[in-house]
Amino acid sequence: MSHSTSTSRPASMTRYGGRRLVATACAAALLCAGSLGAQSAPPWLNPYRRDAARLIRAAQADDFAYRRLAEMTDSFGARLSGTDNLRRAIAWAAETMKADGLDNVRTEPVMVPHWVRGRESGEMLEPTVQTVALLGLGGSVTTPHGGIEAEVLTVSSFDDLEARRGEARGRIVLFNVAFTSYSDTVTYRTNGARVAAQYGALASLVRSVGPIGLRTPHTGSVQYDGSQSKIPAASIAVEDANRIARLAARGRRVRMRLVLESRMEPDAESANVIAEIRGREKPDEIVLVGGHIDSWDVGSGASDDGVGCVVTWEALRLMRALGIQPRRTVRLVLWTNEENGFAGANAYAARYAAAADRHVLALEADSGVFAPAALGFSGTPAARTIVGQITTTLLARLGFTSLGPTGGGADVGPIAEAGDVPTVAYLGDTAKYFVIHHSAADTVERISAEEVSKASAAIAVMTYVIADMPERLPR
Amino acid sequence: MSHSTSTSRPASMTRYGGRRLVATACAAALLCAGSLGAQSAPPWLNPYRRDAARLIRAAQADDFAYRRLAEMTDSFGARLSGTDNLRRAIAWAAETMKADGLDNVRTEPVMVPHWVRGRESGEMLEPTVQTVALLGLGGSVTTPHGGIEAEVLTVSSFDDLEARRGEARGRIVLFNVAFTSYSDTVTYRTNGARVAAQYGALASLVRSVGPIGLRTPHTGSVQYDGSQSKIPAASIAVEDANRIARLAARGRRVRMRLVLESRMEPDAESANVIAEIRGREKPDEIVLVGGHIDSWDVGSGASDDGVGCVVTWEALRLMRALGIQPRRTVRLVLWTNEENGFAGANAYAARYAAAADRHVLALEADSGVFAPAALGFSGTPAARTIVGQITTTLLARLGFTSLGPTGGGADVGPIAEAGDVPTVAYLGDTAKYFVIHHSAADTVERISAEEVSKASAAIAVMTYVIADMPERLPR
Repeated sequence: MSHSTSTSRPASMTRYGGRRLVATACAAALLCAGSLGAQSAPPWLNPYRRDAARLIRAAQADDFAYRRLAEMTDSFGARLSGTDNLRRAIAWAAETMKADGLDNVRTEPVMVPHWVRGRESGEMLEPTVQTVALLGLGGSVTTPHGGIEAEVLTVSSFDDLEARRGEARGRIVLFNVAFTSYSDTVTYRTNGARVAAQYGALASLVRSVGPIGLRTPHTGSVQYDGSQSKIPAASIAVEDANRIARLAARGRRVRMRLVLESRMEPDAESANVIAEIRGREKPDEIVLVGGHIDSWDVGSGASDDGVGCVVTWEALRLMRALGIQPRRTVRLVLWTNEENGFAGANAYAARYAAAADRHVLALEADSGVFAPAALGFSGTPAARTIVGQITTTLLARLGFTSLGPTGGGADVGPIAEAGDVPTVAYLGDTAKYFVIHHSAADTVERISAEEVSKASAAIAVMTYVIADMPERLPR
Repeated sequence: MSHSTSTSRPASMTRYGGRRLVATACAAALLCAGSLGAQSAPPWLNPYRRDAARLIRAAQADDFAYRRLAEMTDSFGARLSGTDNLRRAIAWAAETMKADGLDNVRTEPVMVPHWVRGRESGEMLEPTVQTVALLGLGGSVTTPHGGIEAEVLTVSSFDDLEARRGEARGRIVLFNVAFTSYSDTVTYRTNGARVAAQYGALASLVRSVGPIGLRTPHTGSVQYDGSQSKIPAASIAVEDANRIARLAARGRRVRMRLVLESRMEPDAESANVIAEIRGREKPDEIVLVGGHIDSWDVGSGASDDGVGCVVTWEALRLMRALGIQPRRTVRLVLWTNEENGFAGANAYAARYAAAADRHVLALEADSGVFAPAALGFSGTPAARTIVGQITTTLLARLGFTSLGPTGGGADVGPIAEAGDVPTVAYLGDTAKYFVIHHSAADTVERISAEEVSKASAAIAVMTYVIADMPERLPR
């Protein structure tokens, strides 16, 4: 996920790991599904027990979904908007959905931005020549020919920069802000270049937004102010930020050379990929599930968000394979361009604006599946009670014993807003997720087959019950 | 450490983490120092208890040594033989030893090879374009202009390559060998290019010799056969090796482009850095301690082997600061060129050949200081008893309760062989060490101040007692 601060996603969504999220939900107490034990299982769910158990058994019978994720990420790798890899991944997904026997498989064209990373390098020149591990931020402008050579001004916050504003002109500003939570620190990646430019900086560097890795820089979007000059922006590894900060604290002058040869190409054609299990009674009512098929251009977009695509897709595949056809339509969307534009999400909401209020639930999986995972929900108290009952009754065997406070996601946001649609989010443990998020290390190796099966099972059961309930989930 | 298979280091040295090493030593039973508890502490050590306690207290009183390591690795970064960074680090070390008040501080010139890494890239071309995370191996020849484009042949061992020898010609051979221990798998890095060239391969890739990291390639030396054509050689991240192997297993053809623009420059002048605590009674008898000041050209050579330099140096600094002057001379050597040539170790042994048998003990710290750390010893049973008694009596409070089976090291090897010198090795936990070994992630962040203080304390006490014992340690 992009976790851009400009999305409609609630800011709190990314702040809590699974455990803490659960604790917070239960502390709130109001309608806390955790209090609904198996003993008090509501009778209305009894008719769903058998097929829920079949879906869970099938999801956990083998590592089919994990192997599909490996095939997708091995074959197409990084899938940035505008790239041939993304086009081929989209074509493969549509073909494979047809081979799965899903209904109404289609691609719906969307124009997307096409930012291209070029040659990049970061080098400390003083006090000695040393490599700086960096990644240009998505959307960054290029450096001038030959790069930028300048002294580095290290600051610890926007306030610190404001206090030292007289020192910023002609320098490279480094925002060396320790990672606490994504939502608290991503603003330095998103807005650092804009703020540094106000003070006359030549370029903006941000300490990677994530915990320390193995000299691992993390990319992500930078946002510019249209009325201002744009300066190049990159993230550097935590170790490099530490090193520069330690040198500065010892009174050493640090000079760097920065080369970022990025460029914007004309917008490119891309597509959302859509498939359905057509509803047997109310085909016009839609339970929407999905993830985004695009990724950043490093790593192979396994946790962000290949796995979200695969586990939501798997919900439909399992239903079809088991002959389960709910009352309502289950619709899978693999959105395009979540990372740097939200064009897929906006195109979907625009195309289906007239049907927005026929969306019964929207479930997004775009936070990985790392254990301990949790389900989050946003909607009315009445809807929360029902989704909570499904969770604690039918998903307890998978370890889901309560329902977190927040659903939603960047891709379901626009349609959910348009149709006042309740939302569910599948949330992997953020402590693991942000180690690899937007980095070269986002590969299938970090994900276990068990985590993928568990997510597939939980999403399949939730989707199936909501799509099959006699009464529509209240708004 | 380079852990080259061509050194005189016993092959078993790197095979065991601290725990297992201890278990192995005690299983051998013979003279196992672990059986000597505090109750049976030998009276001859009583005179050393007070100063041993002072040394330990001083080492643990603050994070002086850790800060010195940070200063060294921040200021000079990677210190490959022939580079300006290494020259400056050597000059700084000598100056700083003088400032510490050590005796006979000097640099002894050594000519070293000067290999230079140039532009490097690895790219999968089929089935789709994807980045391959790689590092050229030290000493690798360059690829032809424009790089090498070829299909990849993935093999699981030298035997597997032999069985598929007909497929190797004109290809890039990938040795995809899972990491078990360094000594068992490093042969593919060292010898892979030589073997692959025999079968007509264009280039050799090796799965990084280490556990999985975060898309982390590990460099190290490659060795060529002088009579053969030399082919370029690189290591790739575990994830990339896995991906290529999975694609091959699915019957997908994998083509790559490989660019390695390395070159050899003329040999360059470098130096071993030497300092002493001059012996008060037998100044011609030498207890030798040290690590190597050079490193690979990625990371900042913190665990390999900045920390080995600092903790052995600290032994002398603490003695001087506390006014402890042992009977014999304690000599610190920071060797140059351990990683790709052993020129420093060989030069030291040549220069001091006539004094080889006046070396009483040689202690090398070149395996990091990660907990749980251990001490290893090579020498006669009589000497092992004494070193074991020092360990279990004076170092027990630091957690050293037995003495591992193997001392030695690449840098003390030549002089130890020449003088039949008993050796001690300070051995950090290999499970942590090989995660960052020879990679960009070998930085000070991974080391704790406590680990550095503990190593400094243990080495200071061991060195002090051996240097001060009335009788020379038996050979």
